[in-house]
Amino acid sequence: MPNDRIVLAYSGGLDTTVAVPWLKEKYGADIVTLTIDLGMVDLETTRQRALSIGAVEAVIVDGRQTLVDEFLYPSLQAGTVYEEQYPLATALGRPLIARYLVEAAREHGAYAVAHGCTGKGNDQVRIEVGVMALDPNLQVIAPIRDWGMSRDDEIEYGLARNLPINTRASRFSTDENLWGRSVEAGELEDPFERGVPIAINGESMGGVDLIGHLNAVGGDHGVGRIDHVENRLVGIKSREIYECPAAVVLHAAHKGLETMTLSKEQARTKARIAQEYSDVIYNGLWYTAHRADLDAYVQSTQRHVTGEVRLRLHKGTCTVVGRQAPRALYNYGLATYDRQDQFDHAAAAGFIGIYGLPVRTQNQAQPD
Amino acid sequence: MPNDRIVLAYSGGLDTTVAVPWLKEKYGADIVTLTIDLGMVDLETTRQRALSIGAVEAVIVDGRQTLVDEFLYPSLQAGTVYEEQYPLATALGRPLIARYLVEAAREHGAYAVAHGCTGKGNDQVRIEVGVMALDPNLQVIAPIRDWGMSRDDEIEYGLARNLPINTRASRFSTDENLWGRSVEAGELEDPFERGVPIAINGESMGGVDLIGHLNAVGGDHGVGRIDHVENRLVGIKSREIYECPAAVVLHAAHKGLETMTLSKEQARTKARIAQEYSDVIYNGLWYTAHRADLDAYVQSTQRHVTGEVRLRLHKGTCTVVGRQAPRALYNYGLATYDRQDQFDHAAAAGFIGIYGLPVRTQNQAQPD
Amino acid sequence: MPNDRIVLAYSGGLDTTVAVPWLKEKYGADIVTLTIDLGMVDLETTRQRALSIGAVEAVIVDGRQTLVDEFLYPSLQAGTVYEEQYPLATALGRPLIARYLVEAAREHGAYAVAHGCTGKGNDQVRIEVGVMALDPNLQVIAPIRDWGMSRDDEIEYGLARNLPINTRASRFSTDENLWGRSVEAGELEDPFERGVPIAINGESMGGVDLIGHLNAVGGDHGVGRIDHVENRLVGIKSREIYECPAAVVLHAAHKGLETMTLSKEQARTKARIAQEYSDVIYNGLWYTAHRADLDAYVQSTQRHVTGEVRLRLHKGTCTVVGRQAPRALYNYGLATYDRQDQFDHAAAAGFIGIYGLPVRTQNQAQPD
Amino acid sequence: MPNDRIVLAYSGGLDTTVAVPWLKEKYGADIVTLTIDLGMVDLETTRQRALSIGAVEAVIVDGRQTLVDEFLYPSLQAGTVYEEQYPLATALGRPLIARYLVEAAREHGAYAVAHGCTGKGNDQVRIEVGVMALDPNLQVIAPIRDWGMSRDDEIEYGLARNLPINTRASRFSTDENLWGRSVEAGELEDPFERGVPIAINGESMGGVDLIGHLNAVGGDHGVGRIDHVENRLVGIKSREIYECPAAVVLHAAHKGLETMTLSKEQARTKARIAQEYSDVIYNGLWYTAHRADLDAYVQSTQRHVTGEVRLRLHKGTCTVVGRQAPRALYNYGLATYDRQDQFDHAAAAGFIGIYGLPVRTQNQAQPD
Repeated sequence: MPNDRIVLAYSGGLDTTVAVPWLKEKYGADIVTLTIDLGMVDLETTRQRALSIGAVEAVIVDGRQTLVDEFLYPSLQAGTVYEEQYPLATALGRPLIARYLVEAAREHGAYAVAHGCTGKGNDQVRIEVGVMALDPNLQVIAPIRDWGMSRDDEIEYGLARNLPINTRASRFSTDENLWGRSVEAGELEDPFERGVPIAINGESMGGVDLIGHLNAVGGDHGVGRIDHVENRLVGIKSREIYECPAAVVLHAAHKGLETMTLSKEQARTKARIAQEYSDVIYNGLWYTAHRADLDAYVQSTQRHVTGEVRLRLHKGTCTVVGRQAPRALYNYGLATYDRQDQFDHAAAAGFIGIYGLPVRTQNQAQPD
Repeated sequence: MPNDRIVLAYSGGLDTTVAVPWLKEKYGADIVTLTIDLGMVDLETTRQRALSIGAVEAVIVDGRQTLVDEFLYPSLQAGTVYEEQYPLATALGRPLIARYLVEAAREHGAYAVAHGCTGKGNDQVRIEVGVMALDPNLQVIAPIRDWGMSRDDEIEYGLARNLPINTRASRFSTDENLWGRSVEAGELEDPFERGVPIAINGESMGGVDLIGHLNAVGGDHGVGRIDHVENRLVGIKSREIYECPAAVVLHAAHKGLETMTLSKEQARTKARIAQEYSDVIYNGLWYTAHRADLDAYVQSTQRHVTGEVRLRLHKGTCTVVGRQAPRALYNYGLATYDRQDQFDHAAAAGFIGIYGLPVRTQNQAQPD
Repeated sequence: MPNDRIVLAYSGGLDTTVAVPWLKEKYGADIVTLTIDLGMVDLETTRQRALSIGAVEAVIVDGRQTLVDEFLYPSLQAGTVYEEQYPLATALGRPLIARYLVEAAREHGAYAVAHGCTGKGNDQVRIEVGVMALDPNLQVIAPIRDWGMSRDDEIEYGLARNLPINTRASRFSTDENLWGRSVEAGELEDPFERGVPIAINGESMGGVDLIGHLNAVGGDHGVGRIDHVENRLVGIKSREIYECPAAVVLHAAHKGLETMTLSKEQARTKARIAQEYSDVIYNGLWYTAHRADLDAYVQSTQRHVTGEVRLRLHKGTCTVVGRQAPRALYNYGLATYDRQDQFDHAAAAGFIGIYGLPVRTQNQAQPD
Repeated sequence: MPNDRIVLAYSGGLDTTVAVPWLKEKYGADIVTLTIDLGMVDLETTRQRALSIGAVEAVIVDGRQTLVDEFLYPSLQAGTVYEEQYPLATALGRPLIARYLVEAAREHGAYAVAHGCTGKGNDQVRIEVGVMALDPNLQVIAPIRDWGMSRDDEIEYGLARNLPINTRASRFSTDENLWGRSVEAGELEDPFERGVPIAINGESMGGVDLIGHLNAVGGDHGVGRIDHVENRLVGIKSREIYECPAAVVLHAAHKGLETMTLSKEQARTKARIAQEYSDVIYNGLWYTAHRADLDAYVQSTQRHVTGEVRLRLHKGTCTVVGRQAPRALYNYGLATYDRQDQFDHAAAAGFIGIYGLPVRTQNQAQPD
């Protein structure tokens, strides 16, 4: 009877494996699993596992070509690198999963779809808002968000039902597709004052010495060579080669510290101001009231940009590997999935309902 | 008699060495040279050379500390990286040079200052607008822009006057300060179709294979590891580790091709749209009219983003080393300083006069 | 006993009057009312009413001077006009109310504050996020959002407790302060096709006739005279007088229709693109690839900008008084406070919790 | 012989009438006049006048329909209102004139086109860059910019050659088309302190009284009623009616003063910051570090926003009619076309050459 069916996005991992009996028991429903290969999944093995734990049907889809053609390449054309750092691999896979869920629900006559996201991440929003947009009447269930089980509870629940689960798998959830992989990492480790560098490796240095030192060290490691076709002020393009070891290292460190101490809205506006400020400097407009205004803004943002940054310089690369700030906005208790987790998972459903409301409204009013 | 003096910014190189007798002869003026150490200059040697070629006074200044405190560090705080690539070393030194020129002109009673920039670069604008801002009544002379001598003419002119010039020095002009060095490079070399990659090393590939191949090759070279403290949609910061070799390589290549084929204004607006588009994707809003609008913009920009890009992958770095596009806006005849130079140097003076007019007006009306 | 106290922001209207006994009954608490004059309140009358319905204390505050000095004038300096239309009167009063609530809670030893906002408006968010920012540990109660009573239920509840309520007061909630008044209005009434005008008063017209007609009619009513000090392309300011009746009328009508048919994010990005596009046109860059890109964006946004607009022209003013669009995003069922209300009020609490989380985190980590 | 022909954009006014014999005499060329009706021209009368003063051909074109379809309506769709004030009538007509000039030059075998713009305005740039874009090899002549005649000189020159000129015509140049008319006006007249109002009609007032007074006076004149369909924070659209007389009057006055005292770049960035700041206030985020940063920027911009503004309130409209600021950037000597004119007209040609260079380059490299 179609009305009793739920389509579950099924990866074969602990969370979604436990979700199959849980959804059956709680909703009295038949579970259709949907497994999508976006680059890294053994489809047939996962299909057999799904059937072995009680799915009435186990649908598998090779989504790689569609992912490339409709998501990765348009994103590449747009130059969409989140916060100038992250090329958005997971975020690009989620709307495709939402579409496959909606298609499977229609084909299998399901009244609801389910996903394995928690109440604290981005992916719950991406999938649910995607489903809202594509089929406003389809119900969405988020078992992991709702059931309140810890990881240990899940294992216990699964073992009691003889589910084929791996109790030694990584405690960090992982997502990967063709465009990249994300691994949630553990604690942050090691250490500027109001945005200005004051020491290296424990030794206080004035600016001239500090920059000279970094130019030497950075240069030794090949850091800071830039080959750029540039738009000149006088209307032509020219190719330029730059060597700026200290500048590249310090910008990386400073930005690393800002990711800890600026709010998202501060970071967004400061990025736009930085683009404007760069042009002002490049275009010779240093001595202007406009530059003074921009600087007043910047100085205000630097009040709490104080802390320590650890970097690794190696064969041309400069990587931030540790950041510590007394006034950091990063909060381990909020970010962790451990038992110390202080985040209000239940609030997420209300948040998504209102956040997704205009998307739902527009897709109903303007369906084409 | 003070009114006959000109202060010349003097580096000791060919251009400014030839400028000393030329200014004396053309303006009947006494020349005061001003040499500023921003990180790389032997002040005393340059002072002796200036006096030996006829300067009445040779002023030297160690500007390194001021450069750091008033220009480099504020820029670092602002995160000003021009076109996300270049930390603006030369552009940050120019307003400081303008200030020292104005101060020296006042101290030595000069009616004019002179600099060694050509009519085609950015630096003429930066220095002249800086001087306009700080002293609207001070005259600025640009001998190299005005005299119409080629490099060979300069050498001939200098040898005829027994000037101490090095005839084998590099034909590329160089500028360096503490924050970095810029070297103007020669021709561009080596091969996307409307923004989409179609082959690697001469072999046509579909997207899945192409990305898979780049993930393997890029991964072997350690390219594409990202360690980022990220602002989640649900209001918290979290630390993420990403591995995205193909995405990093392709974004670098695509951006390299766009620097050849998009105008400056297209690049500026597309960068802002990319920031918005990234947030739209990250925030789960793929299926919205807003995303469709952004994509219409992006597709329009990609019409001529066709060509070849050469990249070097090495020990974690991915560098664009060649770009070629049939519809490139880069024009060797305009960018070169060789005899094929097609740029109208004389127009630069008129351009600067009008471009700097609002700066001059504001610094007169609002001096404090 | 201080720990039993709740401070309620009290206006004297139906909602907050009913809230006094409801909070006492539900929380077993003593209620301290707080009434703030931001321009329009009879403080003493309201104080007497609060005491007569059971408040243990009734605090009154004249907040007018503070409102002006710390909120209205800074906003004026910033030129903050929401969506180029609304000078933000109510939105500017809310953070001041949040501050007075926190101050009163501290002075009177209250563990919670309460406000009379519903679950559907902006003001709940503004007040709760304000309180979170100023005192992260203070609890906030929103009785009207929580109790689920309709207006008729409230009146019945109040009459049963002999509360002094006016049963004939307006069904539209009103808020006013020195900076302005907002009145929520009823239904929208009465005709552009994909952003282009096609008729006037029922008569189809080609563009030339249509604009000629509007220039005549608009000119008769003195609409469209503009006196502007303008920044010219060539670096000077000049004063210009323009007369553009048809353009002003059509822009107003078109914008009116867009408020109905574009999402908030589309409206934000289009406003930025329009600013850029204006400069492109003003600066003579019509025949550029950049303009073509901007136009591709604009055309995408106009797909559903089809409908009818009614305008009133009178003595120099042109006002949109009716808008109707088959694909409107305005949804009466969501916007109304009537019984047809389809908005999920309960979701608001979850939304605010997550929306306000970064503000709370930052004010804890960076208190100064 | 085709190679001797110049096409002159001919309006029938003093400047272009004098230009016909001047071009013939200076260039030894045959002059073809081109007169375009964009809404206000008597084509046949102008044609007869052109032939009577020596044109070998007088071409006339009705451009109204094209203006509407290809320029006015796309602009309307884009919402392009320059500096939120001016719907860009003249600026929209110029690229159309450029196109007709290029078409006429091809049809009549001319080697050059000529226009009647001065060296100080926007229109020279718009027309010349338009022609550069459409035909990079066509020469452009700007007789009025080049000949150095004052208005009196022109009249004398014309009378000596028996040209039919009206010596009593307005000294203000006028341009009009279907979309509007621009009239350059004369001096500015009449009176905020660092962006904050301090008096009305000569009487100093505190903020509460001042706003109360303006609410009374503004309300009497029906100023400040706003009817708006608004995007709420919680994801819905609602219709709102606001009454804010004082706020509307003060924002208009403040903006009027800023047009005198902020540079163009300050105005552009402040407009973007104001949009962000409005959203911050509307969305309840007053007590955030982000708002403090924005305010630091705003306070920096207000240093010189001091002066007097005169407004006219009448039947619902509030119009700025006078602005005076001790630190105004408006400079009568630069803005005037009188004999006191201090603007360097000759610099304009160099400016346009460099400003238009990337447009010319792109239209050559990417012609389709």
